[in-house]
Amino acid sequence: MSSPLKVAVAGLGTVGAGTLKVLADNAAGIAARAGREIKVVAVSARDRSKDRGVPLGGIAWFDDPIKMATAADADVVVELIGGADGPAKAAVEAAIANKRHVVTANKALLAHHGAALAASAEAAGVSLMFEASVAGGIPVIKTLREGLAANTITRVYGILNGTCNYILTEMRSTKRDFGDVLKEAQGLGYAEADPAFDIDGVDAAHKLAVLASVAFGTAVDFRAVHVEGIRNITALDIAYAEEMGYRLKLVGLAARRGNAIEQRVHPCLMAPSAPLATIDGVFNAVVAEGDFVGRVALSGRGAGAGPTASAVVADLIDIAGGRRTPTFGVPAARLAKAAAVPISKRNGPSYVRLVVVDRPGVFADIATAFRDESVSMESVLQRGRNANANVNVVIITHDTEEAALTRALKRLQSNAAVVEPPHMIRIESF
Amino acid sequence: MSSPLKVAVAGLGTVGAGTLKVLADNAAGIAARAGREIKVVAVSARDRSKDRGVPLGGIAWFDDPIKMATAADADVVVELIGGADGPAKAAVEAAIANKRHVVTANKALLAHHGAALAASAEAAGVSLMFEASVAGGIPVIKTLREGLAANTITRVYGILNGTCNYILTEMRSTKRDFGDVLKEAQGLGYAEADPAFDIDGVDAAHKLAVLASVAFGTAVDFRAVHVEGIRNITALDIAYAEEMGYRLKLVGLAARRGNAIEQRVHPCLMAPSAPLATIDGVFNAVVAEGDFVGRVALSGRGAGAGPTASAVVADLIDIAGGRRTPTFGVPAARLAKAAAVPISKRNGPSYVRLVVVDRPGVFADIATAFRDESVSMESVLQRGRNANANVNVVIITHDTEEAALTRALKRLQSNAAVVEPPHMIRIESF
Repeated sequence: MSSPLKVAVAGLGTVGAGTLKVLADNAAGIAARAGREIKVVAVSARDRSKDRGVPLGGIAWFDDPIKMATAADADVVVELIGGADGPAKAAVEAAIANKRHVVTANKALLAHHGAALAASAEAAGVSLMFEASVAGGIPVIKTLREGLAANTITRVYGILNGTCNYILTEMRSTKRDFGDVLKEAQGLGYAEADPAFDIDGVDAAHKLAVLASVAFGTAVDFRAVHVEGIRNITALDIAYAEEMGYRLKLVGLAARRGNAIEQRVHPCLMAPSAPLATIDGVFNAVVAEGDFVGRVALSGRGAGAGPTASAVVADLIDIAGGRRTPTFGVPAARLAKAAAVPISKRNGPSYVRLVVVDRPGVFADIATAFRDESVSMESVLQRGRNANANVNVVIITHDTEEAALTRALKRLQSNAAVVEPPHMIRIESF
Repeated sequence: MSSPLKVAVAGLGTVGAGTLKVLADNAAGIAARAGREIKVVAVSARDRSKDRGVPLGGIAWFDDPIKMATAADADVVVELIGGADGPAKAAVEAAIANKRHVVTANKALLAHHGAALAASAEAAGVSLMFEASVAGGIPVIKTLREGLAANTITRVYGILNGTCNYILTEMRSTKRDFGDVLKEAQGLGYAEADPAFDIDGVDAAHKLAVLASVAFGTAVDFRAVHVEGIRNITALDIAYAEEMGYRLKLVGLAARRGNAIEQRVHPCLMAPSAPLATIDGVFNAVVAEGDFVGRVALSGRGAGAGPTASAVVADLIDIAGGRRTPTFGVPAARLAKAAAVPISKRNGPSYVRLVVVDRPGVFADIATAFRDESVSMESVLQRGRNANANVNVVIITHDTEEAALTRALKRLQSNAAVVEPPHMIRIESF
């Protein structure tokens, strides 16, 4: 066997400690598959005294990850600090500048700076790998970059945030509302004290931008992602959707539209037979559609120390074995700058729930607004009557360009009988 | 870019023609991901005059695949002939002897000769790749060999034969019996004229033996696979199982049991929430369980020209890009020779349907036979009475070692009131 692959780990949170544990527990099997030993030679974290449940004896300690990336006697720097900028970015840049391979779980960094970092890594002749950044332990990056590399990928979509999926699963099974379930999820450690990053869809959008780049061979374009989270989803909408034959999930979806790329993260209704419909709780899933392979679906745990460390170490094994691919599948200089499809050009059916005062003429107003914007209705549900009080009217539209639906809903919002902003949820065929 | 990777394709059936089509249709994307052009320089098939829908101009023709493997000016030989021995094996051996990489879709060859071929390929310094041999377009081999390489895999199982899954799906949805649905599947081209290889589980067993080797780092051991097919499955058993909360699938399962490996292919009942339970029709799926990653599930099309060619070309792209792994994940010399767990040592619950004459004392006989062999019953279903005529008694056992259940059923078979051989289907928790 060759000499060990020397690894420096920046960040010793749950994933960092998990990475050390995987490397220690499965050392023999990993060496057999990597062709050589993988050895942690340096670590960096804020608090040296903290007990992380893994022995750090014989491993060099650095208070400063950037210094470690420069000075440690390492072949690879594993960046597990997090954040799009700051020390994470500086450490990765320092590692590349010093011709060290980089393995990172940092989707924010890649979403914001992926294309530039790929170009630097390529120029330095080192690998920049990030399996752990999307969907935790599920090898989606490798699958898109290598396993499905013979295909032109037409669409990739998935459940990319376990916190949101847990909350939506709980809302459905217990019929409780968002705020209530969020609080519970925070208590259980499934949601952060400041949950905005997850529940507003930003985390899923970072991951989607990375996935889209690998799937389509385009430069990461996070700013082109349309992002909506799940704050405004109500138990009532989940129940109505269910009644009309749909399941609700927060979905990240990227698709080719001619030479342009559509990227969006938002709550989404789908048939119960869709591959994502049965992915419940904290699980993640990704579906890729290729011109020859058809549909391939992958699911598993999208977060947590074990699954994420599994992905980090898989990247280390590839590096140890000398297996190199361009960062996003194709050389950085060939990453296409694709035009973005704005959300207003989305075309498909939607679910709309209007809360209206039940009085004569309201329904005609709704129908007129839809007709005037050429939005055709596939079905309408209005349960019972409630003269001069509020009732829910639920409409499923036929395929509609989103701009038209937005105009129709805007017209209705100015109608005095429409007493809440319309609740609109897109329906996708998966 | 470097010089093209030169490929010789042996066998121009649907997959061979599909491979040429993928390479032609997606040439630019493939070259971008491979780092160089992938060029078919030679082909071999039986009938030169046949129109295969792909242009063969400028490609050398060989009537003899073995001669092609030796004489063609190629870096890689793609073997798509099929069969465990004969020309397929000879062509692969000739290619390796001539230091050409090999890509094959041939599970029978690998199941019977995988370990020996891996050793030869390794000695010759060439790659032997076989993503297309298991689960068609789904990159399960890459996932086990690389994506989950940080883990100790404890269990891998899947729906590995689309013909069987199609037949069982149809039997369930139309409540028809096996023979009837088989005939229809043959008419639709989903089952061969001689279907034995598929419906008796042999094809799934070949694939399972290959999967197990990659998952556990053990030498392929096809003879250790316990194999049962779906010929004896009745619509009645599917209906009873459904009523008791189970779905029926033909499953291939391999698991570590201490230092030994359990490998079996047989009809299997599972909860409707199991990841395989919703895989219907010709789709395949594979689930791997690792010590850190937990459960990862992959699904997609397990056969057909497009999906299989997608996998063949993915292997070619890896070879073109210089990405090498040992054939089964670890070097051939390190593939462990694990002991096999015989089916008699399987431990778990089972479904048993007995057809008995409805007369006093029969149920006591059944209960006594089970008790005498220490098989405990979790539930019993007997619908209605039919004095002195045949009735079905359905029993779900608690966890039982299979040998004990076999003895209990043997006792019952010698009981004159038991008028058919017992119908036994294993239940697995997935």
